[in-house]
This record gives sequence, C-alpha cells and structure tokens, in this order.
Amino acid sequence: MNDSLTVRGFRFAGVSAQIKKNGQKDLGAIVADGPATVAALFTTNLVKAAPVLVAARRVQRGHARAVLANSGCANACTGTAGIAAARETTRMLARALGVREADVIPASTGVIGSPLPVDKFTAAMPVLLADLSPHHALHFADAICTTDRWRKTSRATARIAGAEITAVCIGKGAGMIHPNMATTLVFVLTDARVSAPVLHRALRHAAATTMNAISVDGDTSTNDMLLALASGMAPGARPVRSSTDVHALTSLLTEVLEPVAKSIVADGEGAEHLVTIEVSGTSRDEDARTIARTIATSPLVKTAFYGQDPNWGRIVAAAGRSGVRFDPRNVALFIGPVQIVHRGVAVGPDAERRAHQVMQAREYTVHLSVGRGRGRARYLTCDLGHGYVDVNASYRS
Amino acid sequence: MNDSLTVRGFRFAGVSAQIKKNGQKDLGAIVADGPATVAALFTTNLVKAAPVLVAARRVQRGHARAVLANSGCANACTGTAGIAAARETTRMLARALGVREADVIPASTGVIGSPLPVDKFTAAMPVLLADLSPHHALHFADAICTTDRWRKTSRATARIAGAEITAVCIGKGAGMIHPNMATTLVFVLTDARVSAPVLHRALRHAAATTMNAISVDGDTSTNDMLLALASGMAPGARPVRSSTDVHALTSLLTEVLEPVAKSIVADGEGAEHLVTIEVSGTSRDEDARTIARTIATSPLVKTAFYGQDPNWGRIVAAAGRSGVRFDPRNVALFIGPVQIVHRGVAVGPDAERRAHQVMQAREYTVHLSVGRGRGRARYLTCDLGHGYVDVNASYRS
Repeated sequence: MNDSLTVRGFRFAGVSAQIKKNGQKDLGAIVADGPATVAALFTTNLVKAAPVLVAARRVQRGHARAVLANSGCANACTGTAGIAAARETTRMLARALGVREADVIPASTGVIGSPLPVDKFTAAMPVLLADLSPHHALHFADAICTTDRWRKTSRATARIAGAEITAVCIGKGAGMIHPNMATTLVFVLTDARVSAPVLHRALRHAAATTMNAISVDGDTSTNDMLLALASGMAPGARPVRSSTDVHALTSLLTEVLEPVAKSIVADGEGAEHLVTIEVSGTSRDEDARTIARTIATSPLVKTAFYGQDPNWGRIVAAAGRSGVRFDPRNVALFIGPVQIVHRGVAVGPDAERRAHQVMQAREYTVHLSVGRGRGRARYLTCDLGHGYVDVNASYRS
Repeated sequence: MNDSLTVRGFRFAGVSAQIKKNGQKDLGAIVADGPATVAALFTTNLVKAAPVLVAARRVQRGHARAVLANSGCANACTGTAGIAAARETTRMLARALGVREADVIPASTGVIGSPLPVDKFTAAMPVLLADLSPHHALHFADAICTTDRWRKTSRATARIAGAEITAVCIGKGAGMIHPNMATTLVFVLTDARVSAPVLHRALRHAAATTMNAISVDGDTSTNDMLLALASGMAPGARPVRSSTDVHALTSLLTEVLEPVAKSIVADGEGAEHLVTIEVSGTSRDEDARTIARTIATSPLVKTAFYGQDPNWGRIVAAAGRSGVRFDPRNVALFIGPVQIVHRGVAVGPDAERRAHQVMQAREYTVHLSVGRGRGRARYLTCDLGHGYVDVNASYRS
C-alpha cells in the first residue's frame, strides 16, 4: 500500500543537512505544483515552538505552496531569535521556488532549547531542491524522523465529488516524548478540490478519532502539528462541498491517519503492548472520550498493562476520577472477550486468569461499559514499563 | 516529638485480626471518651469504597464516638454486600461501647474487590477492646499500614482559644498506589472545643496545602479519607469561633498534617527523590496550584527527576499544557539555587551542569516563576523510576 506514495500535485524531498549528529536525513520539503489549500491543527500547549507560531499565522491565509521541515532541532523555547530563524529558512525555500515567504510552512522537531542552525539550511538548500520529485515521499518521511524506529506513512484512495481522490499521510513520533524532544509531526496530502474551511473541518473530525485519540504519557509537546494540503489536481474533481462529499473526505483522511496514529503508539520505545480502550454507555460520546482518555493516561493502568495484570480496580478507579458521572453499580469490564467485572463487582479469579492470558498478546482491547447510554469512544495507548524509564530518565549528555 | 502520642479524650487500639496474611496488626480503633465533633474529607473518586459511603453519611451528623479501621481489605467494589459488612462491623464496636452504630466511622484500606471478612472482626473484637488505651496510638498506626515501610505519625500543640491545644495525626499510605491497594487514610485527633462546621473549614484549609498538595502518580483511590475528631477536653478551652482562633486551629492542623503528607510521598517504593514544586507569579494562588500539580504529575518530569536530568523543556512544557495562561517569555526556572531558564530561554550548559549536581540530593526544590502576579503554590512529588514499575507492574498472584 505504501509502495507508491504519490499524490497528484506534490513533490517531495529529504536530505541530510548535518543538523543531526549521525548524518542521517534531517531536512525535508513538500512542494505543491500550484497553490494548495491548507488546514492544520497545532499543539494546545501554551508554550509553542517558533515554527508553530509562524505556521499558525501562515495557515490562516488558507493556501500555501510548500512545507519546510527539519528534525534534530525543535526550535522551541528559543525566543525571538527562533522566530527569525523560522522566517529566514522558509524565505530561502520561497525564493528558490519563486513563491511568497508566507506560502512556506515551517515545521521542526528534535531537541528543545537549541538555536536553529540557519547556516546548515543555507548550505543544504541546493541539494534539497535537486531532490524534489513526486516519487520521494519516503525521503521526506526519513527526514522528519527523530528516535523513530520506523517511518510512518500511508496512502488511500476514494471516490469523492465525482473523482478518484488520493490521500497520502507522512508522520513521525516515537510515541513517547524522548529526552528533550518535541514530538509529533503529521502531514496529509490530497488531490481533492476543497476550500480551506471544509478541509479544516474534515481534518478536525478525522483527527478526533485518530491523532487526538492516542496517548503515550499524556504530555503535549511544544511542536505538535498536523497539516493538510489539498492540490485540487485530481482529474475531473468537483469541489468537495455537499455533506456527503465532506463525509467521504473525512473518511478518507481518517483512513490515512489511522495507521500512522497506531504506528506512533506502537513505536514507543519499551512499549510492548498496544491497547485499545473502548468506553461505551455514556449519554454523550464526549463523556466516553473523557473516561477513555483518563484510563489511557493513568500510569497505574499502564504499568498494569506492562505487568499483564488484569487489575480492574485501577481501570474502574481511573474511570471514577474522570469527572464523568455514572453509576458504579452498572459497570461492566471486558479484557479481550473475557468479562471480569459485572455490575461493578468482580466476576472471579477464573475470569482474571483468562484475562491475564489475553494480556500477553501484543495487541488487545479493553472495553468498559458504564451504563445504557449510546455514547462511545476509543483511545489507543501502550504499556508503561522499564523501557519507558530507560528512555526518559537518561541524563542528556 | 512522637514519643508520647497522647491527646486528651481519646483511646487507641491496634491488634491482629488475621485479615492480612502475614499476621501483622490489621484492625484498629480510636474511641472518644465522650461525644466528639467530627469533620472529614473523602476521595473525589466517583467509585467510592463501602466504608467511604457509610462514613460520609455518618460524618454529616457532626459528631461521632469512634473510628473502626482495618488494613488488608479495602472493601471497595464489593456492592451492597460491602455496605452491609461496613455496617455490621461498626455495629459490633458500637454495641461493645454502648453507643449508636452511626457514632462509629468505618475506614478500610488494602486489596480492592475482596469481601470484608466480617467473621474475623467478630473474633478479634474482644482483643481490640482490651487493647484500648490513651497510650496505644502507635498500635493504631501499625494497624492501618499496608505496604508502608514506616508509620506516619505527628503531634503538635498550640495555644488556641485560651487553652493549650494538642493535635495528633496518624496516617498511612506508601505514596504509590500499590497493586490493587486503596491508599491513604489519615486521622487527626484534637482536644480543641470546636463545632463541626468550623472543624471542617479548618481541616479543608489545612489539607489544601498538605494532603491535597502531594502527588505520586495522579491517581485518586477509592478509599482515601482524612478524618478529624475533636474531643473538646482541653482544660479551660473556649469554643474555637473567632477568626483568629480558627486561623490558629488551621495552623495547628497544618502543622501535624505536613510531616505525615511528606512522609507518605517519601515512602513511595522506588522513590529516590522528594521534590517540592514551587510556582509563583500567577495572578491567583489557584492558578499557581494548577501549574504545580501539572508539573508534579507529569510522568516525563518525574522520570527526568529519576535521571537527575535538569530537563527544563519538560517542566516548561508541562506548565504550558496546564490550562493556565501566562507569557512564556516571562518564565524563570530554578533548580535548587541554580537558575536554568531566564525569560523563557535556557541560561546555558554550565547552569544545567550545576542543576544536575543539585538533583543528586534526596530532597530539593524546583521553582518556576511565570510572571509578576502574587499567586503562589507548592506541591510535593517524587521521582518515577524502575522501582515504580517494579512495584506496580507485578502480577497480583
């Protein structure tokens, strides 16, 4: 499915600019052949990296021509010098492409607090431009990786607004926020014809059940960014406008975001289990989401997953402190197919033994039902074990 | 200071009722010589253990005569049978003392989901009554311990409302919520003369800066309970009523709660560092508290403490996602006396090296200033290391 990561209207590049010490690719670009519609979701952290601040302003214009992304340096907590550096580097690419500086969206990931090495961008710019090709999406995917053990890409197609529409997704993020690292960057490229507001709405809805429904440790990075560009180059495509078409576009974006989101959680160093938390029975989906998020981010629940321990008391207690009202006497809990809590009370030691078997798998689902409401939600999480401590506790020297 | 844990008007007992498998003390009682004023704070978890549900109703009456507490079984998630068991066991003690059942407050801690062994209470009741003595506070302190490595007690006196007032505090909790364990129980006994509403207010204020300002993993147990009983037996004591007296009582309660709170965090198995998070410069204390709590509960910050890593990016990022508004350009961060962030930007590698030295100590303070406001708050936390994973991941078999 990822063998041909092409999408009409976009070229990609990824090279080494020596920003990372190990000589691996660390500078990437995505260039649209013509003006593309743009929409994005940014980190909700009040402390935003310079590229996030610059990108947020530029995305508001609704159109863009290129993305300039680097790994190895987050350009976060770098003050006004960081803003100037984000502007200067995007200006370089804009000039080379003959577009406006504001048409280039910056994105950075890597170490927090170090200044962006602008001179290395200058030196690498010719090689970067030479590398641009519709077939180089994997170069770009490599260039944004930090401690990722593998690339995260996906591609899907769907019939929308009278045309065969393609979407490609390229992301990075090793699940856990690594020492001093600024985490997730995800880019979605499509050849749909769509206005910026509609693209934004579809992206927001698709993210709610994918990128915004994963947790490794509940922390939010200073650099997180999910950006969508639409070239409108699919032959015969009408504008995506009707609710049916918007729904179809949302589904397509969800389809490409889902595997990338899953891959980010699975790539958490030390993570041995990928656990889907399903919550049902609330009156509203939003309440189910709150409960699922509280369970998915509880260190106690996550260490129990690591220990393959069907410790339902922790799961029920996490739901109980989520702030959502429900009657504890209506609670049912399943680990995989095994019910271990019925009407708020333990089913018994035999059920727990069978649940312990289920938890030895690399992937499984925990389902908590809290009542008869129709609200439901899913959240993807991983276990918290010695690998997490090893990765996150090491002194950065 | 703890050598004589007596307080006028109270007797204590603690014996083994074979609820715990290891034969250690697991059943305790506190008995007031006459009607005592009572106030309490309970877990905010929606999933409340049976003793919490029963105690909350009884405390509303404003007076009580005794506490019946056990370890080894939390009587949580035990349904209506659990409620009946809490009532039946307190009725035993009430009959023996010749008081009303509602005058006895139940408290339980230990394994979640197992039924309370009522027959063991029956069998041990005569020994428990025989053990009652003004000098047996340490027996009671032992009886409520679970995985605690040491007892948590304190005693202080102050001149309030014309009399020498004593307060004794007895708590338990090993900081981390242990596998399947329901955590903190804290009892404060005083000989002050005070109405239930005033006692409640003083307790709430004292808890805000002590028991409610500690974090090990951000989880809230199903059994947490902080209970205060006032006998009014201090010779010559006038009722605590004036704002000066209420303030003095709050200070006294704070003085006995503080060392117990600190001891609970320090007792976290695997915890190697006790870190005070100080936040200042917000407009309101409440905002400083929110920031301090977010930092104190961040797994990333806590693993950095374990690794003795002055990873200021994580601390600033945690503040940034707390929901409190501040200007990141005004942020200053100190680890011990060493400033490592000035106006939102790193001071430099030399400062970080010195901060790393500070972080090797068993206890130190992290101070984050976010502006010029007069709001400030403190939170006590510990590091998250391999010990936490070992203790919390083991399968409960």
